[in-house]
Amino acid sequence: MVQKIINDPVYGFISIDHPLILEIISHPYYQRLRNIHQMAFAHLVYPGAVHTRLHHSLGAYHLMCIALDELKRKGVEITDEEALGAKIAILLHDVGHGPFSHALEEVVVEGVHHEKMSLLIMQKLNQQLNNRLDTAISIFTAQYPKQFLHQLISGQLDVDRMDYLNRDSFFSGVAEGVIGYDRILKMLTVHNGNLVVEEKGIFSIEKFLVSRRLMYWQVYLHKTVVGAEMMLVKILHRVKQLIKNGTEVKAATYALDYFLHKKAGTTNIEPDLDKFCSLDDTDIVASIKNWQQHTDKILSTLCTCLIQRKLYKVRFQAQPLAIEEWENLVNMVMDKWQVGRDEAGYYLFEGVASNTAYNVNDDRINILYKNGTLKDILNVDNALIQHNLISPVKKYYICMLR
Amino acid sequence: MVQKIINDPVYGFISIDHPLILEIISHPYYQRLRNIHQMAFAHLVYPGAVHTRLHHSLGAYHLMCIALDELKRKGVEITDEEALGAKIAILLHDVGHGPFSHALEEVVVEGVHHEKMSLLIMQKLNQQLNNRLDTAISIFTAQYPKQFLHQLISGQLDVDRMDYLNRDSFFSGVAEGVIGYDRILKMLTVHNGNLVVEEKGIFSIEKFLVSRRLMYWQVYLHKTVVGAEMMLVKILHRVKQLIKNGTEVKAATYALDYFLHKKAGTTNIEPDLDKFCSLDDTDIVASIKNWQQHTDKILSTLCTCLIQRKLYKVRFQAQPLAIEEWENLVNMVMDKWQVGRDEAGYYLFEGVASNTAYNVNDDRINILYKNGTLKDILNVDNALIQHNLISPVKKYYICMLR
Amino acid sequence: MVQKIINDPVYGFISIDHPLILEIISHPYYQRLRNIHQMAFAHLVYPGAVHTRLHHSLGAYHLMCIALDELKRKGVEITDEEALGAKIAILLHDVGHGPFSHALEEVVVEGVHHEKMSLLIMQKLNQQLNNRLDTAISIFTAQYPKQFLHQLISGQLDVDRMDYLNRDSFFSGVAEGVIGYDRILKMLTVHNGNLVVEEKGIFSIEKFLVSRRLMYWQVYLHKTVVGAEMMLVKILHRVKQLIKNGTEVKAATYALDYFLHKKAGTTNIEPDLDKFCSLDDTDIVASIKNWQQHTDKILSTLCTCLIQRKLYKVRFQAQPLAIEEWENLVNMVMDKWQVGRDEAGYYLFEGVASNTAYNVNDDRINILYKNGTLKDILNVDNALIQHNLISPVKKYYICMLR
Amino acid sequence: MVQKIINDPVYGFISIDHPLILEIISHPYYQRLRNIHQMAFAHLVYPGAVHTRLHHSLGAYHLMCIALDELKRKGVEITDEEALGAKIAILLHDVGHGPFSHALEEVVVEGVHHEKMSLLIMQKLNQQLNNRLDTAISIFTAQYPKQFLHQLISGQLDVDRMDYLNRDSFFSGVAEGVIGYDRILKMLTVHNGNLVVEEKGIFSIEKFLVSRRLMYWQVYLHKTVVGAEMMLVKILHRVKQLIKNGTEVKAATYALDYFLHKKAGTTNIEPDLDKFCSLDDTDIVASIKNWQQHTDKILSTLCTCLIQRKLYKVRFQAQPLAIEEWENLVNMVMDKWQVGRDEAGYYLFEGVASNTAYNVNDDRINILYKNGTLKDILNVDNALIQHNLISPVKKYYICMLR
Repeated sequence: MVQKIINDPVYGFISIDHPLILEIISHPYYQRLRNIHQMAFAHLVYPGAVHTRLHHSLGAYHLMCIALDELKRKGVEITDEEALGAKIAILLHDVGHGPFSHALEEVVVEGVHHEKMSLLIMQKLNQQLNNRLDTAISIFTAQYPKQFLHQLISGQLDVDRMDYLNRDSFFSGVAEGVIGYDRILKMLTVHNGNLVVEEKGIFSIEKFLVSRRLMYWQVYLHKTVVGAEMMLVKILHRVKQLIKNGTEVKAATYALDYFLHKKAGTTNIEPDLDKFCSLDDTDIVASIKNWQQHTDKILSTLCTCLIQRKLYKVRFQAQPLAIEEWENLVNMVMDKWQVGRDEAGYYLFEGVASNTAYNVNDDRINILYKNGTLKDILNVDNALIQHNLISPVKKYYICMLR
Repeated sequence: MVQKIINDPVYGFISIDHPLILEIISHPYYQRLRNIHQMAFAHLVYPGAVHTRLHHSLGAYHLMCIALDELKRKGVEITDEEALGAKIAILLHDVGHGPFSHALEEVVVEGVHHEKMSLLIMQKLNQQLNNRLDTAISIFTAQYPKQFLHQLISGQLDVDRMDYLNRDSFFSGVAEGVIGYDRILKMLTVHNGNLVVEEKGIFSIEKFLVSRRLMYWQVYLHKTVVGAEMMLVKILHRVKQLIKNGTEVKAATYALDYFLHKKAGTTNIEPDLDKFCSLDDTDIVASIKNWQQHTDKILSTLCTCLIQRKLYKVRFQAQPLAIEEWENLVNMVMDKWQVGRDEAGYYLFEGVASNTAYNVNDDRINILYKNGTLKDILNVDNALIQHNLISPVKKYYICMLR
Repeated sequence: MVQKIINDPVYGFISIDHPLILEIISHPYYQRLRNIHQMAFAHLVYPGAVHTRLHHSLGAYHLMCIALDELKRKGVEITDEEALGAKIAILLHDVGHGPFSHALEEVVVEGVHHEKMSLLIMQKLNQQLNNRLDTAISIFTAQYPKQFLHQLISGQLDVDRMDYLNRDSFFSGVAEGVIGYDRILKMLTVHNGNLVVEEKGIFSIEKFLVSRRLMYWQVYLHKTVVGAEMMLVKILHRVKQLIKNGTEVKAATYALDYFLHKKAGTTNIEPDLDKFCSLDDTDIVASIKNWQQHTDKILSTLCTCLIQRKLYKVRFQAQPLAIEEWENLVNMVMDKWQVGRDEAGYYLFEGVASNTAYNVNDDRINILYKNGTLKDILNVDNALIQHNLISPVKKYYICMLR
Repeated sequence: MVQKIINDPVYGFISIDHPLILEIISHPYYQRLRNIHQMAFAHLVYPGAVHTRLHHSLGAYHLMCIALDELKRKGVEITDEEALGAKIAILLHDVGHGPFSHALEEVVVEGVHHEKMSLLIMQKLNQQLNNRLDTAISIFTAQYPKQFLHQLISGQLDVDRMDYLNRDSFFSGVAEGVIGYDRILKMLTVHNGNLVVEEKGIFSIEKFLVSRRLMYWQVYLHKTVVGAEMMLVKILHRVKQLIKNGTEVKAATYALDYFLHKKAGTTNIEPDLDKFCSLDDTDIVASIKNWQQHTDKILSTLCTCLIQRKLYKVRFQAQPLAIEEWENLVNMVMDKWQVGRDEAGYYLFEGVASNTAYNVNDDRINILYKNGTLKDILNVDNALIQHNLISPVKKYYICMLR
């Protein structure tokens, strides 16, 4: 019997016991994820947060295996084919992420969401593997009849989210973000075809949502992390602007160069799929290192600042800035960097960060009581998660380079 | 009072409480270490092992702080200046590492050991910081009278080794490699100016040496890790060979390109120090990604294999291969890859890996008994570490690309 | 310099560095706590939860040391005398707990709260130690001018609570209850003489309160735990009843025997303080083991059930039971155990368990913003802890022996 | 399907999935182990080491489940009946331990080893459970043909040892003693009907043996632990002596009283089995608390000392004491305690502690190489465990009460 064991500091060992899973993991499309940080530039604040999307997908796959075993133990019918499909779907759920994905989604591959991209890559892989990914794709796209399989992959309590909260907490060293994934998995069950949580799991779910809230404000939206990611966005904007204006800007690698110089407007990404699948964080970082010596002062300044970790100063506040204060800052920046009002936007700008503790527009987290009734976690007795936690918390921020 | 706190999954929090330490950490020379993996390609086997040399130096700095506090508590005299010096020296002990250091030391910067390089960079930094690193350099180079300060940085029981064993175990998920650093640190003391271990620490030291032995054979010299690192070495050899033969080979980044095309023979690295200080893992990886499309078939093959993780198969054995068997393999490879005998060396070669449990040529680990006598860990009663563990264990290996 | 190091699985090492602390720890009053389980009978559900009140006090002492160091680092003035006082006060805060304290407070030492008892013991110890506990007692009783010292010992965010949540989670294996004590401690500061939390600590405080809520409903008020503790209460009630009726009931130990046969009504515990200080869990358990053979059937039944872990079945419900349903149960029990209505109360009874997430009648948890304003955690922007969490959650339960 | 989940801080969750296992766990014979400390008086030094024999057996049962699953995955044939038998056998392997077992084996139940006692209790339980323990008993007594099942329960690499090293390290906080049980279990296989370890497990085995060595000298044979256990032995000796001399000595509980007053000489324990099964640590401790007030000064002194943790001072040394030195000490003690030479033996005595790293008289640990050869861990290439580690290390000690 095939078996491969992978050491994982988070879960101990991850076991692979099907040859198709091994084949997918060995495929270059999947191996590419080794060079994409799961948390982009968060490691500039949390030096341990250098884990990769490959590692996260393996972790989510591991949780999927546990969840499926647990459901089967409780009598939920899941065929081998379905189990394999669900495992493949979670393994590949992030395969469409580009480098520094959340930051660059809009810049490198304009207007194509990473989930769309994951699907395109799965389909292409499916061709290469003789349609052995049919079930996986059907589950991934929520077309498969047993909805709970899709809900394990994508929902407010999916194994994706469980792994990334766990793993990001672990590697960043923000131990408070750790969630009780093992207990939550033991509390999952299926009711009328949907994934639900047993009554005894209420407090674990509350803790899960509070951990997520903590991770957002303390880590993912940490002001220095935001400062670094916005700097990357501005660098790519500048590059695109320069190219549009006819200035030569060469990327360090062929693949990135192709995308930067590609004509905008075409939304058909499929012909470029293979090129996309060769992009990773190193293309971006190596290019930025070269651009430190570019003749455009704005570009070289931003690139040098990012490499040397001299990031935007970021200030969060409850309201957007008053106009006069804003004008003062703009003038200061124009003066300090000797640029016009337009270009000042590379050194000073506003933004808004937002997170919702529990999103009522997404699949709800439902609690199954022993007497058979079902309640949204929002409506359980003495609920912790209440109606004022369902609207997004917005925080305005100003980024400025001094 | 200045204080910065850094989350670390290994130790919880690392505190920085001196402005000079902060200044050094913020310096580009130090920030560069963010992009150098501590364990090179070990993450191809242990996906969590993606931590950086920056993180390791911070960890070793943290252990140094604990060790100095402990020694002071025991009455060992250490001035503030000395403590600061020792902390800076450990923080910078690895600043001279190039990308994929152990693999590339011989290729990128020929014949300059990374410790030498660390010293050169410290000296340059010392100029920039108005000689505030004088004590640190004196300790680093073992010229400072209180030898135990140097021994904490470089010895068989230094905080460098303690941190890397701990950290590499932690991130690789090879939990068995974890050492009892907190107990060892509590057992350290100074005797006649030298670092020694109290009697009660004997079993912890034994465990430390056994952990190190385990990490070597299970992780650092894991056959797949060796296979990946040798592939990188062979790629760089091929590049140098091609350049020597007049074939154009461009690196993805300016800095790496400079070193690849630099005339060999000059041993004076100082004029190139700044360029060296811009090299990191991304220069290598981005270049290899580009070279996948190089016209030289050997180069493009090796680069594609490394990126796609199709590595040399590695076989360890107690003895070198018998000549006939070797000849058979050479012929097989020449046939399969359609190359001559010389070039076959890129697809098939032998090597030797070696590790010593306890090195008697290095500073000894001495145990201080309550009655004042001192014994080498090798000579304590009922010693675990015995004379047959002081000679290196050698294992021969064959790498072959199929 | 005196130093003793104690291994602690929760915090690694606990250091004792003052001779007076060592003297107190060695005193029989303190050593008694070794034989008192921190979590009474919770180990009947969570077999690891066998840690002692001695261990918990040591842990709380350790957190106090960290908290005081942190406050001093932030410039809060704390003299050596005050620090020692606070450490002693926390070390002794639970010294007045009797065996199975929360269950037996009302039975063994009627009407004397364990905090009152701790104070009496501290005062007695103070006499023996030549008034060296004056400051500790002043802090413990909140008479010492620097209120924050008392707040560290007794409040909604004191080191007592931090240690017991942490330690109870750790030993019970309910990992989800673990709190981020290290981060909370780093966020503490003093404002106008009161203990407050820095703005950056809001999410950690939220998580702390949610962990506490989880531990209450999942562990402390677990139905089987409640069932065991109520069985102990009923046993002691029966013993007192029998003695009152003139039946001989001997305890296994002299000390417990004394308290069981002592005339009720006297509220002056001081003459019995030394006897009280020899009572621990073993007196109760050994007696119950003997009473399994008592001629009173109710007593022997309950004792045998408790020793053999055949506990009351406990059912929680939102409302008290309807009268008819109650009557049915009473009749069932009278029939099954062949007892009258009065004595049926040993086999069937109702109760109510209650817990408040955040108690507005207790010291509030105040957040200090960077701009100097102070807000109750209840009133911060986008608060998780809201007004409906300040009233106690009540759950009714029925205990029945089948 | 029956399933019960038990929280365990060491392994997370322990699952029980067979009704017979639940039945056994609920039996009073098994529940008794709740009140027997796994590590006797080690908690006087390591306050966390208060875990019980019940908890240890559950842990060993958990490891057995993992080991059996792993072996089955590798193709070793194990029927459901055999798996159940092995699980029951390990669950009950320690059921014959009396209170403070290693110390009291010779005193309470003279001359009956705890393994013998476990077998007697299993047999009695087997009668009550209609012979459903037949296979378990056959495995436990090594009569079952598949020897590897017995070797998992009792050998130099059994799950008993793996759990106790792990658990004792965990609860004592001596983190260095932790072993890589998960990796060792993955390396187990069966060869010619015997349990062996795969080649890749050599370093894990070495670490396991070194951890055990560390735990012995640092924890189990810690001088204060030895001092406490010897004090208990001396107390029981004194009690027996007094009874023999006709002095009345009452134990606090009926069961202990029976054994103390039982006529010596009869080796048939079977009629007393039920009484034995009601003895636990509380019988001993409660009695000692009462005996603090006994009229015999030696008895009351030793009991008070043990309760107040004023233990023998213990000194380890490589050789027994020289006669003159011994005589001096005897005289000192006779003078200080005002006793004759005979009775001085309660205050001063010598002993010897001993441990063997690897016992060649026990079942060997055999390594299975890929080429099919088998080697004792003592004989592998570059072995850490060498011939001088197979003879016991002996340390002499002197106990004295000052």
